[in-house]
Amino acid sequence: MRALVYKGPGQKAVEDRPMPKIAAPTDAVVKIVKTTICGTDLHILKGDVPTVTLGRILGHEGVGVIQELGGAVATFHPGDRVIVSCISSCGKCEYCRKGMYSHCTTGGWILGNTIDGTQAEYVRIPYADTSLYRVPAGADEDSLVMLSDILPTGFECGVLNGKVQPGSTIAIVGAGPVGLAALLTAQFYSPAASIMIDLDDNRLEVSTRLGATATINSKDGKAAEKVMGITGGRGVDTAIEAVGVPASFLLCQDIVAPGGVIANIGVHGTKADLHLERLWDRNIAITTRLVDTVSTPMLLKTVQSRKVDPKRLITHRFKRDMILDAYETFGHAAKNNALKVIIED
Amino acid sequence: MRALVYKGPGQKAVEDRPMPKIAAPTDAVVKIVKTTICGTDLHILKGDVPTVTLGRILGHEGVGVIQELGGAVATFHPGDRVIVSCISSCGKCEYCRKGMYSHCTTGGWILGNTIDGTQAEYVRIPYADTSLYRVPAGADEDSLVMLSDILPTGFECGVLNGKVQPGSTIAIVGAGPVGLAALLTAQFYSPAASIMIDLDDNRLEVSTRLGATATINSKDGKAAEKVMGITGGRGVDTAIEAVGVPASFLLCQDIVAPGGVIANIGVHGTKADLHLERLWDRNIAITTRLVDTVSTPMLLKTVQSRKVDPKRLITHRFKRDMILDAYETFGHAAKNNALKVIIED
Amino acid sequence: MRALVYKGPGQKAVEDRPMPKIAAPTDAVVKIVKTTICGTDLHILKGDVPTVTLGRILGHEGVGVIQELGGAVATFHPGDRVIVSCISSCGKCEYCRKGMYSHCTTGGWILGNTIDGTQAEYVRIPYADTSLYRVPAGADEDSLVMLSDILPTGFECGVLNGKVQPGSTIAIVGAGPVGLAALLTAQFYSPAASIMIDLDDNRLEVSTRLGATATINSKDGKAAEKVMGITGGRGVDTAIEAVGVPASFLLCQDIVAPGGVIANIGVHGTKADLHLERLWDRNIAITTRLVDTVSTPMLLKTVQSRKVDPKRLITHRFKRDMILDAYETFGHAAKNNALKVIIED
Amino acid sequence: MRALVYKGPGQKAVEDRPMPKIAAPTDAVVKIVKTTICGTDLHILKGDVPTVTLGRILGHEGVGVIQELGGAVATFHPGDRVIVSCISSCGKCEYCRKGMYSHCTTGGWILGNTIDGTQAEYVRIPYADTSLYRVPAGADEDSLVMLSDILPTGFECGVLNGKVQPGSTIAIVGAGPVGLAALLTAQFYSPAASIMIDLDDNRLEVSTRLGATATINSKDGKAAEKVMGITGGRGVDTAIEAVGVPASFLLCQDIVAPGGVIANIGVHGTKADLHLERLWDRNIAITTRLVDTVSTPMLLKTVQSRKVDPKRLITHRFKRDMILDAYETFGHAAKNNALKVIIED
Repeated sequence: MRALVYKGPGQKAVEDRPMPKIAAPTDAVVKIVKTTICGTDLHILKGDVPTVTLGRILGHEGVGVIQELGGAVATFHPGDRVIVSCISSCGKCEYCRKGMYSHCTTGGWILGNTIDGTQAEYVRIPYADTSLYRVPAGADEDSLVMLSDILPTGFECGVLNGKVQPGSTIAIVGAGPVGLAALLTAQFYSPAASIMIDLDDNRLEVSTRLGATATINSKDGKAAEKVMGITGGRGVDTAIEAVGVPASFLLCQDIVAPGGVIANIGVHGTKADLHLERLWDRNIAITTRLVDTVSTPMLLKTVQSRKVDPKRLITHRFKRDMILDAYETFGHAAKNNALKVIIED
Repeated sequence: MRALVYKGPGQKAVEDRPMPKIAAPTDAVVKIVKTTICGTDLHILKGDVPTVTLGRILGHEGVGVIQELGGAVATFHPGDRVIVSCISSCGKCEYCRKGMYSHCTTGGWILGNTIDGTQAEYVRIPYADTSLYRVPAGADEDSLVMLSDILPTGFECGVLNGKVQPGSTIAIVGAGPVGLAALLTAQFYSPAASIMIDLDDNRLEVSTRLGATATINSKDGKAAEKVMGITGGRGVDTAIEAVGVPASFLLCQDIVAPGGVIANIGVHGTKADLHLERLWDRNIAITTRLVDTVSTPMLLKTVQSRKVDPKRLITHRFKRDMILDAYETFGHAAKNNALKVIIED
Repeated sequence: MRALVYKGPGQKAVEDRPMPKIAAPTDAVVKIVKTTICGTDLHILKGDVPTVTLGRILGHEGVGVIQELGGAVATFHPGDRVIVSCISSCGKCEYCRKGMYSHCTTGGWILGNTIDGTQAEYVRIPYADTSLYRVPAGADEDSLVMLSDILPTGFECGVLNGKVQPGSTIAIVGAGPVGLAALLTAQFYSPAASIMIDLDDNRLEVSTRLGATATINSKDGKAAEKVMGITGGRGVDTAIEAVGVPASFLLCQDIVAPGGVIANIGVHGTKADLHLERLWDRNIAITTRLVDTVSTPMLLKTVQSRKVDPKRLITHRFKRDMILDAYETFGHAAKNNALKVIIED
Repeated sequence: MRALVYKGPGQKAVEDRPMPKIAAPTDAVVKIVKTTICGTDLHILKGDVPTVTLGRILGHEGVGVIQELGGAVATFHPGDRVIVSCISSCGKCEYCRKGMYSHCTTGGWILGNTIDGTQAEYVRIPYADTSLYRVPAGADEDSLVMLSDILPTGFECGVLNGKVQPGSTIAIVGAGPVGLAALLTAQFYSPAASIMIDLDDNRLEVSTRLGATATINSKDGKAAEKVMGITGGRGVDTAIEAVGVPASFLLCQDIVAPGGVIANIGVHGTKADLHLERLWDRNIAITTRLVDTVSTPMLLKTVQSRKVDPKRLITHRFKRDMILDAYETFGHAAKNNALKVIIED
């Protein structure tokens, strides 16, 4: 089968690879129907993720069809259409039993990381019963690809951790796909004001279409000042960090109101300053989280009942054999006004 | 009346001052029966708290008797014995209505800060109805002095924010009075293990008497390693920072388990490093809080029902006219094995 | 001034009454601009509310202008436009400090009950600082009349207690004003399905316009069966009782899913059967609540940010001197397709 | 092997039965080391539990040793000592993923009910990975037998659902084993007052030894009055029903304070009156729950750290071949002052 393979820092290739096989009784082999590219895949390709070794098939998102099942899989049958979760959950360890699947002692984020991923014709999925989700009849599968990672990430790490509430004021720093996923799912809770902050005017325009009540281009260094202006000097109840650099985390510290939350989504490569000398008495919380995908069943219901339309995050489509073009487009997202791309047969 | 007055950085004096008067219909004047000294008072005396001006009477803790009341005070009568809360709460503003009294728009921590405090024979208490608590008949008033600040601070900022649970593992960095108050009140929730970390062996001995299941003297720089040893490499569910310097906050980052909480109590004078490159995917929360004293009624019930004995934090007693000696003792706490001191008539 | 007065069971009159006066330093006298009639007022007129004595001016809802203030009121000035809360909250007692204003030891629901109410030209409001809410500049005051009682009642007793969540399935038994207020505010949380159940087809049509995804006329006695059909035999996550009779409470027991909540809003005059023999092992919760109006500031933000349009509950308008006509219309609500009526100058 | 078998209403026998075999790859066969008898077993023997058919081996509690494992069991090895949970959890269905194992679609309470149970030399345990808990080295196995059912039942259904808090006032109606288990585990949260109510003076004496601060013998019909006396007319924050008859549920309604919780543990065979005409405006919650055993890992930590000593519930011991004597003793518990009995080799 054809697969997108990591060949070392800065290098990738489409290669022929053997079909995956059932390796444990809890495994499934899934034929991938649609997949996509994540910002994390770009990080891997830069060489920033040391757990990814040469020859790894990338990708941790997708919708597919069950091809083959291990003997202990109880929930699925061959031919079932499924959403692949970016997180593999054994369902048995202490963390899985607490709903913290991200820290599953034998799973977590392993797809396209320590085991081969979904940017291929087929993929082996460990712990199929607890890591795949059935596609409802008649569902829009483009939308469901967004349930593999981006929507639960924005929702769990940003919105749930950020305790977004009816009438509250939120700011999201970073209007890339995950920031926009947080924006979309924040609307579940009817905040009064949703402020999007980014350096890219196109993304800010998209933000407005997706529900932002105000947008701020932060390139003039006055974003904090502007947020304070919008909020009457009070700051925001929830500041969501969706970039992953110290500057955006600092901005969150500058705009969070007393009693508020800074919910970090961004993948950080370096430490940041925490201004405890200003924050120690502000009654705030800062949260971090690798997505658990524990909310996937809930999100599926919101998609099916049209409370959210995650397809709006999709900007480009590619046939599977054009996956290198998809990477080219997604890798220069700003230039191409790209958010999520769909790769399909 | 006699009062302990701030005379500028490094200077204090006992002086004659006029009796406080009712200034607003919601005020009370309280005759102080017992008071104490807080670590914050030492910070003020160093000149570190710019809101405190020359001539300010210090002190924000104490038990007393209602001397005089403004016309709108409904709950108390002259002669009532009361606990003075370190936080003044108007009961009306947005923050007070949410139970976040620390951020009361016209109150908060003002006693012995922006208005005269309790280290005097009498003190004016604004918003008496919502800032004083009735002393139950027959109560031990030494214990109740601990309810002005230290016990709710340890409990709210450390234990409640830290989500201490039955069977959980906690570590408290700093075994001074507030760290010990957190230790005492953490026992309300029956944690399986309570690890105290400090540089002072005497305080660690006290910790053991007050319920610590393990103690670590961190002076060898191996505290994190030892906590990991005690917890089987897992870390602690709750790490409570009760010092207020970057090193202790860093230690908390090193020992918090995935899914855990770092609850900051310490008053920080400088920023600290936050290792987001290690913590972004660890599903942790960091909380800060200035005590709200919203738990005072609950704590009063626990004291009255002997679920906690806060008197155990008291090491020394002084007559009011010996308050300078009390400062001397408390100011060299390590040398004197001092925790809380009682100053009384 | 003219006022609508209770004259004993089945009797009411518009009478001349003296202007109210400030009786306590925390009082306000408010000139009523708009008021409305509540189902509770009809109960009173039937003689069902024994705390209401002859000669009482009815009404506990309205928007007005501050006319006069007691000396201890800090938050308002004469001329301020305010929403009158149906609940008077002292802000000082144990219950008020916990946010349970409904059980304020000297307040609670007293307006138009144990003291004169808002169906008059002027009303005295006790505890003005903590029982009135400022009208934002430019706000639609018709909508804000709904914030006195009906919207917080539907929201707090039905939606918050019912733990409505994104993707969840709810049913509301009773599509009168309070049931519809619950329906409107349930949408804050993006439930997947909102089923309205009533005997009146007009109200069910209104429900559909206000966001119901399914409606059931229960007059054939098959409502439970139909709910089970809609929910695939599972039942609803949240069943909201908004009628106040045993039959509707029983229906809630028949349709609640394992792990679900029955949130009672209805005012009950008699006991009901609780089928513990079926429910003991179903992991459900049943909640009751007299509205606290603790959510009024939150609701005001949702109205101002157009997340909800409570004006949609208003069907009729009357000049103040036609208040008896307003009662006639509201008293025969089904015949007149009446929900909330506005009474104004 | 020898087993205690249900032979129809009023009849039981010790019989020879074939050894259980692995039937699914997720099964374990466990050699029972210690077991006990539950009040539910007595209900079954009366013929009150229609799901139990003739010939069923009873028992859903015990500690044992893994004898044999299905091919998909990942967590255990033969020879491991384990606690058997009374609830079988597949770990995969919607309910298991939410921590509501009691409603597992293919498990739940099946042991000694729809499949053979633990009152035998060996038992087959479905879903071994998610229904067994490892015995820590050196643990007291008598105590751990209490973790199969009684301790999590008292804790989850009574204490957790009842929201017991530091300083709160609780009453437990019924001082049988499950009421006492609630009393023991309520102490995790340091309530100020724990009132036990029962008809049996011996059980009330035991209650005092296990932490009750007051006891009431309710046979004079004045229990509600006495609770009101103890609580200054306020009632209790948490009322735990641990009997399962209408009278005790009614008593809970009479003693719950505004804002309080009635947490039902009792197994009810008939409906009860719910006095909504008095409770609709009291802001209370009523909860029901079949134990999920989701707290077993937490409880195990509290036992191991000596925060609770569940062995104190054990009053009698029997060799396995004397199990009929054990039933005789437990079946006349009041006469024999029996609480939990241990049955062992």
